Amino acid sequence: MTTFEPRNPDFRAAATRLFDGQPVMRTLGISLARLAPGEAELAMDYAAGFTQQNGFVHAGIITAGLDNACGVAAFTLMPRQADILTVEFKTNLLAPARGEGFVFRAEVVKPGRTLTFCEAKAFARQDGATTLVATMTATLVALVRRDAAQASSPA
Amino acid sequence: MTTFEPRNPDFRAAATRLFDGQPVMRTLGISLARLAPGEAELAMDYAAGFTQQNGFVHAGIITAGLDNACGVAAFTLMPRQADILTVEFKTNLLAPARGEGFVFRAEVVKPGRTLTFCEAKAFARQDGATTLVATMTATLVALVRRDAAQASSPA
Amino acid sequence: MTTFEPRNPDFRAAATRLFDGQPVMRTLGISLARLAPGEAELAMDYAAGFTQQNGFVHAGIITAGLDNACGVAAFTLMPRQADILTVEFKTNLLAPARGEGFVFRAEVVKPGRTLTFCEAKAFARQDGATTLVATMTATLVALVRRDAAQASSPA
Amino acid sequence: MTTFEPRNPDFRAAATRLFDGQPVMRTLGISLARLAPGEAELAMDYAAGFTQQNGFVHAGIITAGLDNACGVAAFTLMPRQADILTVEFKTNLLAPARGEGFVFRAEVVKPGRTLTFCEAKAFARQDGATTLVATMTATLVALVRRDAAQASSPA
Repeated sequence: MTTFEPRNPDFRAAATRLFDGQPVMRTLGISLARLAPGEAELAMDYAAGFTQQNGFVHAGIITAGLDNACGVAAFTLMPRQADILTVEFKTNLLAPARGEGFVFRAEVVKPGRTLTFCEAKAFARQDGATTLVATMTATLVALVRRDAAQASSPA
Repeated sequence: MTTFEPRNPDFRAAATRLFDGQPVMRTLGISLARLAPGEAELAMDYAAGFTQQNGFVHAGIITAGLDNACGVAAFTLMPRQADILTVEFKTNLLAPARGEGFVFRAEVVKPGRTLTFCEAKAFARQDGATTLVATMTATLVALVRRDAAQASSPA
Repeated sequence: MTTFEPRNPDFRAAATRLFDGQPVMRTLGISLARLAPGEAELAMDYAAGFTQQNGFVHAGIITAGLDNACGVAAFTLMPRQADILTVEFKTNLLAPARGEGFVFRAEVVKPGRTLTFCEAKAFARQDGATTLVATMTATLVALVRRDAAQASSPA
Repeated sequence: MTTFEPRNPDFRAAATRLFDGQPVMRTLGISLARLAPGEAELAMDYAAGFTQQNGFVHAGIITAGLDNACGVAAFTLMPRQADILTVEFKTNLLAPARGEGFVFRAEVVKPGRTLTFCEAKAFARQDGATTLVATMTATLVALVRRDAAQASSPA
């Protein structure tokens, strides 16, 4: 893994604020577990309310965790005044998402002034063992925040 | 769009049962709006609890709707005893997911004995207008249901 | 399909020049068959030199046609001084790429100042029939050409 | 990286035969550089005939190398009588593909009886330095070879 130099010395506070500002993370019971320049790890407990027909956590919920891990990881390398939006991601589902809890680990592969490319992995925890259940590759875009209207346009 | 011949004459009841059997759909407030052979449409009202930092519905939630629309559309063409799992999907986010409500429309592009390929689009509704906010391409796999353990293995 | 208004009145000449400037297109025997604002169609004859182990045209070659169709389609909507690079694409392979010839059809789904989102389909032609063999979704980025060095950086 | 146990003791000969059986690899000047259970590395020299408008190797050609590296890596873990086809891949283009030569490295992330998931990276070599230029995630399907007609159906 590459070591990255954050452009915003307050990247930790900024990324935490980005995470805390998202109501969906509280609703899904996802918490911010670890932060480093270009890296983020989120954690989520199993909840029956987010499962599909076989009792596994739904792929969309796993994707929410993966995407947010990518967003926070990318945000740690962005300048102070940036906002961030996801351009696209692909999720490959490798094993059923069953377990007591889940971890979402993302890292920046290629940061850029406009576009940042990230990879993330989702793991299920059960009885002390962890299983890779899904992977994501994602492109994110930095938006220079001028006003609210501008910040809301993805490209 | 191609016209498909369902292999299961009870496809409508089977697909509805698949949808109803997913607790996550109720939690997210997503309902089944329309079914046809190889097609599905889901609907979701805006809910502040599922938004990101700008008040838009989070990409993971939009993805949950798109993925489930693909799953239900694919399932309408599968034989009676099949279970279904998603192999992979890619989501492109084209506009902020803001609006009173959202619609997820999926159609099968290529059905297969094992693998089915689907495309889906997410639209936001606001004041009578609809905006395309995201697209998905997805691969799904049919599993012949022998017992619960088997049904839970994606490939 | 949406109707698009090109920003460059000479879009046809510009897109043709973009296509003609790519040696790979001549090497692969791909030609520009049709152009419209936000749309492009390319054609390729079967050539044994581009096949894989079963005599089908290799997925990478099909992808070259799809990607270039997307690039040309996106370029028709870009301003005069832009250069273009592909950010990412996903290809789904739906049927073996066998036939006398192939057609690659791309259209812009969402143009943008920086990012453009396109979809494309590859068809095989054989004895007057056409078969869908692959689909692509792609994100492309417009680069304002200041000098050669700049134009070569993707983001 | 996980260590994999090949099911075919002659996996090395089988994977080499798979690679050698593809005319496109010779046409593109791609060679098989390294093989291990669940891993493959290919190499390609720069050739002006495969470049786009800025003199970089075209994304489709890079994709051909990445896809084939994935195919060969996946094939090393398949049983003796299998054939293999690509279901889908996504390529993210991170830097211009310029250099004296290119290396394509793939590894199996999750093997399966039917579906195998791989990741690959493309590097450019120039003056002794290497640069990551693209990544791929890919799903491949094993086909049990019964007869030629069957082997040609992707799913």
